[in-house]
Amino acid sequence: MAGNTFGSLFRVTTFGESHGVAVGVIVDGCPPGLPLAAEEIQRELDRRRPGQSAITTQRREPDQVEILSGLHEGVTLGTPIAMMVRNQDTRGGDYEEMRTKYRPSHADYTYKAKYGVRAWEGGGRASARETVGRVAAGVLARKVLSAPVASRDVEIVAWVRQVQDLEVDVDPATVTTAAVESNIVRCPDAAVAGQMIALIDGARRAGDSLGGVVEAVARGVPPGWGEPVFDKLDADLAKAMLSLPAAKGFEIGSGFAGTRLSGAQHNDPFYNAAGKVRTRTNRSGGVQGGISNGEDIVIRVAFKPTATILREQETVDEEGRDTTIKPRGRHDPCVLPRAVPIVEAMMALVLADHFLRQRGQCGG
Amino acid sequence: MAGNTFGSLFRVTTFGESHGVAVGVIVDGCPPGLPLAAEEIQRELDRRRPGQSAITTQRREPDQVEILSGLHEGVTLGTPIAMMVRNQDTRGGDYEEMRTKYRPSHADYTYKAKYGVRAWEGGGRASARETVGRVAAGVLARKVLSAPVASRDVEIVAWVRQVQDLEVDVDPATVTTAAVESNIVRCPDAAVAGQMIALIDGARRAGDSLGGVVEAVARGVPPGWGEPVFDKLDADLAKAMLSLPAAKGFEIGSGFAGTRLSGAQHNDPFYNAAGKVRTRTNRSGGVQGGISNGEDIVIRVAFKPTATILREQETVDEEGRDTTIKPRGRHDPCVLPRAVPIVEAMMALVLADHFLRQRGQCGG
Amino acid sequence: MAGNTFGSLFRVTTFGESHGVAVGVIVDGCPPGLPLAAEEIQRELDRRRPGQSAITTQRREPDQVEILSGLHEGVTLGTPIAMMVRNQDTRGGDYEEMRTKYRPSHADYTYKAKYGVRAWEGGGRASARETVGRVAAGVLARKVLSAPVASRDVEIVAWVRQVQDLEVDVDPATVTTAAVESNIVRCPDAAVAGQMIALIDGARRAGDSLGGVVEAVARGVPPGWGEPVFDKLDADLAKAMLSLPAAKGFEIGSGFAGTRLSGAQHNDPFYNAAGKVRTRTNRSGGVQGGISNGEDIVIRVAFKPTATILREQETVDEEGRDTTIKPRGRHDPCVLPRAVPIVEAMMALVLADHFLRQRGQCGG
Amino acid sequence: MAGNTFGSLFRVTTFGESHGVAVGVIVDGCPPGLPLAAEEIQRELDRRRPGQSAITTQRREPDQVEILSGLHEGVTLGTPIAMMVRNQDTRGGDYEEMRTKYRPSHADYTYKAKYGVRAWEGGGRASARETVGRVAAGVLARKVLSAPVASRDVEIVAWVRQVQDLEVDVDPATVTTAAVESNIVRCPDAAVAGQMIALIDGARRAGDSLGGVVEAVARGVPPGWGEPVFDKLDADLAKAMLSLPAAKGFEIGSGFAGTRLSGAQHNDPFYNAAGKVRTRTNRSGGVQGGISNGEDIVIRVAFKPTATILREQETVDEEGRDTTIKPRGRHDPCVLPRAVPIVEAMMALVLADHFLRQRGQCGG
Repeated sequence: MAGNTFGSLFRVTTFGESHGVAVGVIVDGCPPGLPLAAEEIQRELDRRRPGQSAITTQRREPDQVEILSGLHEGVTLGTPIAMMVRNQDTRGGDYEEMRTKYRPSHADYTYKAKYGVRAWEGGGRASARETVGRVAAGVLARKVLSAPVASRDVEIVAWVRQVQDLEVDVDPATVTTAAVESNIVRCPDAAVAGQMIALIDGARRAGDSLGGVVEAVARGVPPGWGEPVFDKLDADLAKAMLSLPAAKGFEIGSGFAGTRLSGAQHNDPFYNAAGKVRTRTNRSGGVQGGISNGEDIVIRVAFKPTATILREQETVDEEGRDTTIKPRGRHDPCVLPRAVPIVEAMMALVLADHFLRQRGQCGG
Repeated sequence: MAGNTFGSLFRVTTFGESHGVAVGVIVDGCPPGLPLAAEEIQRELDRRRPGQSAITTQRREPDQVEILSGLHEGVTLGTPIAMMVRNQDTRGGDYEEMRTKYRPSHADYTYKAKYGVRAWEGGGRASARETVGRVAAGVLARKVLSAPVASRDVEIVAWVRQVQDLEVDVDPATVTTAAVESNIVRCPDAAVAGQMIALIDGARRAGDSLGGVVEAVARGVPPGWGEPVFDKLDADLAKAMLSLPAAKGFEIGSGFAGTRLSGAQHNDPFYNAAGKVRTRTNRSGGVQGGISNGEDIVIRVAFKPTATILREQETVDEEGRDTTIKPRGRHDPCVLPRAVPIVEAMMALVLADHFLRQRGQCGG
Repeated sequence: MAGNTFGSLFRVTTFGESHGVAVGVIVDGCPPGLPLAAEEIQRELDRRRPGQSAITTQRREPDQVEILSGLHEGVTLGTPIAMMVRNQDTRGGDYEEMRTKYRPSHADYTYKAKYGVRAWEGGGRASARETVGRVAAGVLARKVLSAPVASRDVEIVAWVRQVQDLEVDVDPATVTTAAVESNIVRCPDAAVAGQMIALIDGARRAGDSLGGVVEAVARGVPPGWGEPVFDKLDADLAKAMLSLPAAKGFEIGSGFAGTRLSGAQHNDPFYNAAGKVRTRTNRSGGVQGGISNGEDIVIRVAFKPTATILREQETVDEEGRDTTIKPRGRHDPCVLPRAVPIVEAMMALVLADHFLRQRGQCGG
Repeated sequence: MAGNTFGSLFRVTTFGESHGVAVGVIVDGCPPGLPLAAEEIQRELDRRRPGQSAITTQRREPDQVEILSGLHEGVTLGTPIAMMVRNQDTRGGDYEEMRTKYRPSHADYTYKAKYGVRAWEGGGRASARETVGRVAAGVLARKVLSAPVASRDVEIVAWVRQVQDLEVDVDPATVTTAAVESNIVRCPDAAVAGQMIALIDGARRAGDSLGGVVEAVARGVPPGWGEPVFDKLDADLAKAMLSLPAAKGFEIGSGFAGTRLSGAQHNDPFYNAAGKVRTRTNRSGGVQGGISNGEDIVIRVAFKPTATILREQETVDEEGRDTTIKPRGRHDPCVLPRAVPIVEAMMALVLADHFLRQRGQCGG
C-alpha cells in the first residue's frame, strides 16, 4: 500500500518523477463506451501547464499526452486507460545544489529519511508534476459524471478565493468556468483578480511567494452519494485535497467559521421545493452524515505559500551539516492559479468513484 | 467498498447502529504478542461514554466492552480482534417523531435517500455511538505505537482548543493528558476551561448547542512515515478526522492561517540539533511532502454545533411534506469534550497504519 | 492486509478462534432492503454444524447465531451485518498435548513460526470453525443473487463427487439440493452415497481419515461477470476454494483432464439457441477469458484427508525436540460432507461480489 | 475494482490491449534501493517473447521494454516503477473475420457481453500479450526475494511437466533453470523434451493445438509467509495462476492425487533436522494452514489447449447468427513453453507480496 492509487471503483494510479522519463496515470474501472479524444485530455493539461502566464513558473513544457491503452475506435473499453506525458530533460545547473542540500519546507529530507534514496532533481515524485496524471484522469471522471452514465450532469467549478490577505466571496450557485478562465489568476471577480495578480507579481519580483485558498463547488450531485462511516463523501474529499502538494487545510460548508455559530443558527432547515427535498441554507455544504443531500457541495482548500523562494535560507545537507541554500531559476510565486484545475480534477475523481460505489451497492 | 473499514495494514471495521443489538469493531492486522487487558479498552471507552459529566448527554450507558477474539492468555495473536458493546434498549417515546420526520442537519434524510430504508431511532449507523469501535481500536493502535513494537513511544494528546468564540493557545510540545483530563471540558487551561463549561451550560439551558475546535499532537513520530502521493500522512489524517460525526474542517500545522504568510515567513529552516535534523519552526505541522519529518504532528479539527437542539424547527417528513420537529430528551449540547478521546483514537489508527506500511515496504 | 477479509464490494471479514469466546463475521456492502430472518442463517449453519451425523465429528455445538447489526425491522440496512456464534467451552484434557507439540499437517507449527504465539487449543484461527462466518455470510450472498436484486435467480449446488477412490459423475445441469441433502454424505447418487458412508465409517473405526473432491455448479449466472485480468471469475473462485481448510486443488470446466485433449476436441462451439448465444459443450466451465458466458459454472475442489487421525505420529515439540503425538477424542474422519455447504457459501460470495462489481462499473 | 491490479503491498497494475499502442505495468510498493537495469527486464521478456522457437507463434515482436519511472541512477526509488512495451502494428487481414465473429473458447463473446464494446483485433485485453507486464514486474519481485531485502535467496523454477498425455516426474528439490532452458519446450528432461517437441510440432502441422501442465517450485521460502484465513499463501497462488490465460486448474503439493490417500498415508511428519523443524515428506507442498512451513513450495497449473486452431469451427456473429470461423495465420500450437516464465513471474509476485506483508505485521 505504497499510496500511489486513489479511489475504490474509479481507480487512479499515477507514476513518474519530475525529472524522470515520463509522468502518467492508469485509470482503472472507467465505464465502457465513453467517447474520448486525446484533445479533451490535452485541454485540461494545458490549464495546469507551467509557463501559461506571467504569474506562473516560466518553465515551458508542452506536456503532450499520449493515450496508451483502454480506447478502441475512440471509445473507452472498460479496461485500464494508461496515459503518459514525457518529461523534457531540464536537468541542469539549476538543480546541482539540491543534490546535497535539503530545501526548507520541501520533501527532500523526508523522502531521503523514508527511502534512503531520492531523485534529487526538482522534487522527484513530490513535484507538482505528478498532478499531470490526476488532471488527465479527471477528464474521464467528468465524463462518468455526465448524463449518459450518471443520468445527470454534475458540474464542477473551482476558483481562487483568496491570495494572502485578499479574499473574495463568490456565489457557488452561479459561478461559471468562463468567469474563472477570464483571467490568469482564475478568480471570477475581475476587480479582485487584478489585485491578486499585482500581489503575486510583487511577490515574484521580491523572490518571495504567496499562498491562499481555492474554493470549489459540485452542482447537480444527487442525494445518496458517500459511504458511511469512514468513506464519507467529505472525508474522501478532504483526503483528496490534502493529498495535493502544498495543501494545509480543508473545509466543507460552514467549515471553521461555522464552529462559532450555535446549533439554532447553524442547522439547515428542510423544506419541500416543488416536490423536491431541499434545505433553506447550506451550511452543511451539500453533505450530511457523509452522504450528499442534493445541495451544492462546497469546499475550500488552504495552500501554503510556495516553498521555493529565491532567497538564501538556513538548512542542512545530506550529512546533516548546517549550511545555507539559495534556489535559483524559475518557480511559481503562487500555486493557486494552477491549483484550480487540479482541485477540480480531484473533486471529479471522488465524485465519480462514489457514484460507481452507490450504483454497485444500491443499484443507482 | 461500503466504507466501514479504515486503514490498510492496521485495519479497522466497525459495525452497529445506535439502537441495534450492539456496536463494535474488528481490528485486523494488529501485530502479535501485545499484552492487552479488557480494562485498558474500558478505560478509553469511559472517556467517550455519555453521561460522564454535567455538560454531556445525560443518557447513561455503561458501555461494557467484551473481547470476542484475537487474544490468547492475555496477548494478541495476530488474528482479528473483535470487540463488542451491547446497546441498552432505549427505544421509546423520545424517538417516535423521528420515525417519519427528518431532523435538520442530521443524516436521516441522506440515509433514506441512499438506501431507501433507515434505522430511524437515534441516528442508527450515523450516531456517534459508532465511534465506540474506533475508540476501542485506538487502544490497540497506541500499543503498536509504543517502544516494544515501533521502537519508540509515540505520545498522542488531544484537547479542546475552542468552544464557539472562546479559544486558547496551548503548547503542543508540552501539553499533558493529565492537564486535559483535569476538567470536564478537556481544555488544559483551567481558567479557560471554566469559561467553556459556563458557555456550554448556558447553551444547554437554552436548548441550544455549540461547536468548536479540537487540537491534537503526536509527539515522537520518527521521520519517514506517510506514503506519497495519495496516502500522504496528512491526507489520511484529514480523512480520519472528516469521517467523524459533525466534523467540518481540518488543518495541519499553519493551516488556513498560514495562507496569509509569505514563503519567506512560512518556510521551516532546517538545522542540526545535536546530530539530529530538526526544523527551527514547525509551520509544516510535522509533515512535509506527506511524510513525517520528526517534528510534532499538530492538527486541528472543526466540529459544528450539535444538530440536535431542543427547539422547534422547520423540516419535511418522509413523504416530503413540510412540517416541524421539536426534539425532546437528552442530548450533548457540545460534542467537543467527548470528541477528544475519539480524535486521539483516529490519530493513533492513522499512525499505527503508516508505521506498519513503512515497515512493510522499507523494513522499518 | 492480514487476510481476514474476502471480496471487493460484497466484503466479508471473519473473526474468532476455535476455543475463544466466539466466531463470527461482518458482511459489508450488502445491498439494502433484503428481508432476512435469523432462522435463514441458522438453517445453513446447521448444515455445517459438527455432530450432525454418524460420519462427522461427535462434538456437539448448537452454533446458535446472533445478528448484532445491519438489520432493521427484518430488512438489511445497507450497513455492516455483524453475526456471531458463541463457542462452547470445550477446553480440556483432550487438547493438553497440543500445548507443546505440533500436530503433523496441521497449522500449529506455521502459526507459531509466523506470529511467535498461537492459540494451541484445537487449531485456533486455523480451525474449520472459522468457516461459520463464511456460511452465515453466504446466506446473504445468495439473497443478492436472487431476482429482486440481480434480476435473476442464481442457483448454487455443491455435492460430494469423490471420496478416496470412489467417484461418481453427476450432471451439473440437473442436480438438486434435495438430492444432495437426501443422505448424510451429501452425494446425490444414493447408491454411491451408501458406499461412501461405509468407506468413511471404516476409516473412522480405524482411527484414520479420508479425502476427496467436492463439485459445485452455479446455474443462471448471466454473461458478463468477472473482471479481467487478475480478478477473473475463475481466479477468484480458485482463491475462494483454496482458502478453505484442507483444500489442495481447484479445477474449472475440463480442468486437469482437459489438458489431455487437443484444441479441436476442447473448444466449445457457439450457436444460436432460440436467440441466445450458447455453447454446444461446456469444457470452459461457464467462464471464458475470466468472464461468465452464461453457461453453468462448474468447479471441483480437492480436499486432503483430515490431518487429525487417532494414531501415534512422529513430530516435534515447541522446543524443536523429536517426539510423538497421538490425538485423542472426536474428529471428522472426512471433511467432505460438511464442506458442501461451505463450498456453496464461498461460491455465492464470489458471485455476489462480481455481480456488484459489474453493476458498479457497467451499470448492470 | 476492475481487476487489473494484483497484490497488496507489492502491487502490480497492468494495462494494454494486444493491438493498442502499448502494453505495460506499474509496480507500486517495491522496496527502495534495489539496483535494476533495463537489460534484466529485457532478458525475462525475451523468455516469453513470441517467435522465439519453432514451436511458438511465428509472430515476431522485439518487445523492447522502456522504464518510465521509479528509478534514479540505476536504483529503485520506492516510488511506482512504470514499464512499457510498444506494440508493433500488426492489424491486418488476418483479423478481419474477428471483427464480427466470436472465436470459440476465446474471450471475444464474454468481453462484448460485459462491456458492450470490444477491441476485436487479436483478443485485445484478453490476449496473452497482457502478460508482458507481469513478467516485467516479476523481475522486481525476484529482487525483493533475494538476500539483501528478504535476508535469504528464494529460488523459483518452473518447467513443462506434461504436454497432452506425455508426462514426466521432475524432482522439485534439484531442478535447475539451466536444465529448463536447455531446450525449446522447457522440459528439464531432455529425452521427454524431444518427444514433447515432436508432439507439439505434429499438432502445429495439423492446425491443431495442445495443452498440458506447468509445475513450479519455490525453494528457500522461510516459515511464516501467508495470511490466514482468506489470503492463504496457496489461495493467492491459486488465484495468481488461474488469472493466466488458458489456465483451468491448480494444485499444491499432493493436489488431486492426494485425495486418494488416507490421513495416515498423507500426513507429513515433523522432525528435527540439525536444529531446524522439517517434514519427512512434503505432501503439503510447503504450505500448512495457508502459511509456508519452510519446505519447497510445489504447485502445478493446468493449461487447456490453445483456443486458436486453424480449422473451420461452428460459431455465431455479433448479431447472434450461426456461422463458421476459420482462423488463419500464426498461432502458438501450445502455450506451455512460453507459460513457464509467466508462471515463475506470478509465483514471484505472490511471494514478494507475502514477504512484505509478513514484515509489515510481524516485523520480518
